[in-house]
Amino acid sequence: MTESPSAVVLLIHCPDRKGIVARVAGFINEFGGNILDSDHHTDREAGEFLMRTVFALEGFQLPPAEIAAAFAPIAKVFGMRYEVHFIPAHPKVALLVSKQDHCLADLLQRQRRGELPIDVPVIISNHDTCAMWAELYKIPFHVFPVTKDSKPEQEQRVISVLKQQDVHLVVLARYMQILSGEFLRAVGCPVINIHHSFLPAFIGANPYRQAYERGVKLIGATAHYATEELDEGPIIEQDVIRVGHRDSVEDLVRKGRDLEELVLARAVRLHVERRVIVYGRRTVVFD
Amino acid sequence: MTESPSAVVLLIHCPDRKGIVARVAGFINEFGGNILDSDHHTDREAGEFLMRTVFALEGFQLPPAEIAAAFAPIAKVFGMRYEVHFIPAHPKVALLVSKQDHCLADLLQRQRRGELPIDVPVIISNHDTCAMWAELYKIPFHVFPVTKDSKPEQEQRVISVLKQQDVHLVVLARYMQILSGEFLRAVGCPVINIHHSFLPAFIGANPYRQAYERGVKLIGATAHYATEELDEGPIIEQDVIRVGHRDSVEDLVRKGRDLEELVLARAVRLHVERRVIVYGRRTVVFD
Amino acid sequence: MTESPSAVVLLIHCPDRKGIVARVAGFINEFGGNILDSDHHTDREAGEFLMRTVFALEGFQLPPAEIAAAFAPIAKVFGMRYEVHFIPAHPKVALLVSKQDHCLADLLQRQRRGELPIDVPVIISNHDTCAMWAELYKIPFHVFPVTKDSKPEQEQRVISVLKQQDVHLVVLARYMQILSGEFLRAVGCPVINIHHSFLPAFIGANPYRQAYERGVKLIGATAHYATEELDEGPIIEQDVIRVGHRDSVEDLVRKGRDLEELVLARAVRLHVERRVIVYGRRTVVFD
Amino acid sequence: MTESPSAVVLLIHCPDRKGIVARVAGFINEFGGNILDSDHHTDREAGEFLMRTVFALEGFQLPPAEIAAAFAPIAKVFGMRYEVHFIPAHPKVALLVSKQDHCLADLLQRQRRGELPIDVPVIISNHDTCAMWAELYKIPFHVFPVTKDSKPEQEQRVISVLKQQDVHLVVLARYMQILSGEFLRAVGCPVINIHHSFLPAFIGANPYRQAYERGVKLIGATAHYATEELDEGPIIEQDVIRVGHRDSVEDLVRKGRDLEELVLARAVRLHVERRVIVYGRRTVVFD
Repeated sequence: MTESPSAVVLLIHCPDRKGIVARVAGFINEFGGNILDSDHHTDREAGEFLMRTVFALEGFQLPPAEIAAAFAPIAKVFGMRYEVHFIPAHPKVALLVSKQDHCLADLLQRQRRGELPIDVPVIISNHDTCAMWAELYKIPFHVFPVTKDSKPEQEQRVISVLKQQDVHLVVLARYMQILSGEFLRAVGCPVINIHHSFLPAFIGANPYRQAYERGVKLIGATAHYATEELDEGPIIEQDVIRVGHRDSVEDLVRKGRDLEELVLARAVRLHVERRVIVYGRRTVVFD
Repeated sequence: MTESPSAVVLLIHCPDRKGIVARVAGFINEFGGNILDSDHHTDREAGEFLMRTVFALEGFQLPPAEIAAAFAPIAKVFGMRYEVHFIPAHPKVALLVSKQDHCLADLLQRQRRGELPIDVPVIISNHDTCAMWAELYKIPFHVFPVTKDSKPEQEQRVISVLKQQDVHLVVLARYMQILSGEFLRAVGCPVINIHHSFLPAFIGANPYRQAYERGVKLIGATAHYATEELDEGPIIEQDVIRVGHRDSVEDLVRKGRDLEELVLARAVRLHVERRVIVYGRRTVVFD
Repeated sequence: MTESPSAVVLLIHCPDRKGIVARVAGFINEFGGNILDSDHHTDREAGEFLMRTVFALEGFQLPPAEIAAAFAPIAKVFGMRYEVHFIPAHPKVALLVSKQDHCLADLLQRQRRGELPIDVPVIISNHDTCAMWAELYKIPFHVFPVTKDSKPEQEQRVISVLKQQDVHLVVLARYMQILSGEFLRAVGCPVINIHHSFLPAFIGANPYRQAYERGVKLIGATAHYATEELDEGPIIEQDVIRVGHRDSVEDLVRKGRDLEELVLARAVRLHVERRVIVYGRRTVVFD
Repeated sequence: MTESPSAVVLLIHCPDRKGIVARVAGFINEFGGNILDSDHHTDREAGEFLMRTVFALEGFQLPPAEIAAAFAPIAKVFGMRYEVHFIPAHPKVALLVSKQDHCLADLLQRQRRGELPIDVPVIISNHDTCAMWAELYKIPFHVFPVTKDSKPEQEQRVISVLKQQDVHLVVLARYMQILSGEFLRAVGCPVINIHHSFLPAFIGANPYRQAYERGVKLIGATAHYATEELDEGPIIEQDVIRVGHRDSVEDLVRKGRDLEELVLARAVRLHVERRVIVYGRRTVVFD
């Protein structure tokens, strides 16, 4: 049922110099490739070049498994870091949740209606409140409660499930636990988190309460890659909604839920379409 | 040429209890007043009641100068802080600028086309780059350069001009100087500042550079009342605009200018229409 | 389990004149009522006055069933049309859908997590594709297929179910059928529709295709009360999202789904909180 | 004082096929060009390919005047329509206004502060109300009043001035006159108009009045190339702002002014940076 990959995404990051686009496009053309989309960015301040090129698998004269190796000599000449991906790839995405189910339900429905090309082999939670969704979509569901003391052990159990499933991406769909550095080093794949504020405003706990007390006129949500520094990872997507004095903390929470769903879903989509290159503390998003 | 006041704005702030609206509306009705607009807010968490009622001067049977005194007994019963204003009042607004002229030019043009009911008796700057606008609109223009050492003295000179002109509001239209606590205590009227970020993100200097380095996907502007704690005053209005990796710091500055103009103009408008009640660290904005 | 009504909403519409607010607030105060929220609007062009006042049921000295009658003499004096509602009322809301389930799933989940105070006694469709949601939430589900010829008869069957259930509101959650004037006259309650464009742009069928071909830079969604003139009913809520040349018609459909969900959910919420007064071809929305 | 062109913009439009990007990038590379920015779009529905490539003039081994001819053989092979532009080019832009000055003042200030790389050799109006801005910026100002009868003759006088000045672009900065087909054929350069609605909603006269009467919850502005069919030209940029029942027609006009300024300025910027390719009734905007 799952659609096979139809295109190659080539992501490139190197020092800026002349001739990169010509050399890359020439490589694709030599093997009969048809470029479907191509975008690049030159950071003139830093002298860095970043590029995303998509070309059709159909008609390309190299077998998929040999493309990366065939490109290596060019990468060497230009000092490139590069990645070769195939889309749609239906990567295995583990969803981690806590008590609130709105982001979870939203991602699963987008997946089901064919809008988000991912597979979800497992849902993990520290509570059992989201069991209904796992059941509805027939996805294995693990509950690993966590306390301050049991955290290292609980993280080990989570890691162990993720490794078993060989997941390509972990999405913290309102997981509400701070992952340790050990976890992030051990997990072996990117982790996307949704933070319920417009970062870097309102870092840490209870951002809606913080926003209410500061009296801001807009609240936000931020999807970012999780890193060891809490709420400091590279930002993938953000959005805001207007609020006013009539909104209680509960109203901010309610309005924020819609933002969280939208921003997280957009970020996951951007990631699995391989539109994001992490670049220092920042991202380049080719949308 | 200036339009005379046609309406009374009654601003009320007191502990919440029954019968406030009835008593206030009753007072206005007893003297033949016609309520044009009325809005109130109950902060249930804090048990506070805040209200803005506008009624027509025409047909009201009390002389304007006696309204506040006539309302005093009601205020006493309910423990109200209250203010009586007349709109449009064309308050005297001093504009303080530094080198950049966009907010200044914008406010002056809004005033000129009748959109912003204010008078601008004086423009003060620490540079002479904005002289052209003072000349065009025939407004006295004072240049008081400032250095670290001369700051106390320079602030005295600014205060002295503001006092001479008896201004009702000071607008920091990108003044780029931090006002001392002494200045804020001495000035004797509200001071509105425009900060070029979505506060509380990117407090302090160079917010666009900070935003660029953090890689945010939206930049903002915040208009707030200036207080002694830098960038911590009650927020009147905020807005944001989308940015991306293609935007250099200069692009953020350019996009930000439009935001700064709009957000500051909206805040000044809200203030002079007496739609804002400061309330702890926050504002209630009846718009 | 369902929360009992805690407040009275009084909606008023009459010619503008002095003393209305005082008289209404006085009525509430006389019977010991505590006003929780009050907002009004004067349409000066038309000389019309519209008001929404909310007061606590607790402590009000009239039984709920007698409030409307007690207010009648005041209404007569001022020539008021008025309505008395109790909130939260958990009105019975029938959801009509066609093949697409996103608005349906969204409304049901909002209801379930306590965000939307409604009961959904029945879901009706002309297809069986949404059966899964009816099953999940244990709601009776009727499938009444419709063809051009069977339409009058099919509408009768729908009406018959709605009458049996005694519903207070019908929501067309992407029903994709044009309701006849007979249906709208027979249904006996308001009908809210979600149209997938920024009305009045792109009236009628295939608005996303129309938007694509016109090359607009924003697409929208509009929630409105259904009337006999297609897509001409009073607008309750609208919103837009940015699109570009990279977006195919399918991308517009995908982006539009998020808008449709949000705009429809906001409109239903505004309606059931009794914040909307229909007023000619327009609405006044007290939010 | 005016900055010299530093880069070449190559705009391409042709049927889609393999090898276009490689061939174009190869051409630039062969002559030592450094690609600064490159973006393309494939309209799969129509089988069309559109591209914008920017490369540095510095180091390019062909004289600017010979680039177009050198590219011709490639264009022939692929059946390309193509344009070669140099940026910043400071094109001569004529501004046409009527009584309202806000878009005019805004464009002139953006030009003056170096944000909009254009020259404005002439301002033309059918009224004299904008004379102040022409004087301030020392730009020749022509007033050609127009009546129904004098329109053909008045258009001739406008055309005559535009031809004398050899302008590259005409901007209707709220000109409020419908240009005839004769005018548009004779003018010999693109014409950008700002329409004060979210087109295609509210075509024709008094869109704010129309919006008010329809009760929309958002108003918009649309910048588009003027064509013979009124308000039907290819859209360059659009934006909207939220409005409500409290907004009178005058309030819509006031809020709309800010939109008109922003949307028109963005459109002019996109045009002069050669980011727009007109494409049937639509545009591709490489931003």
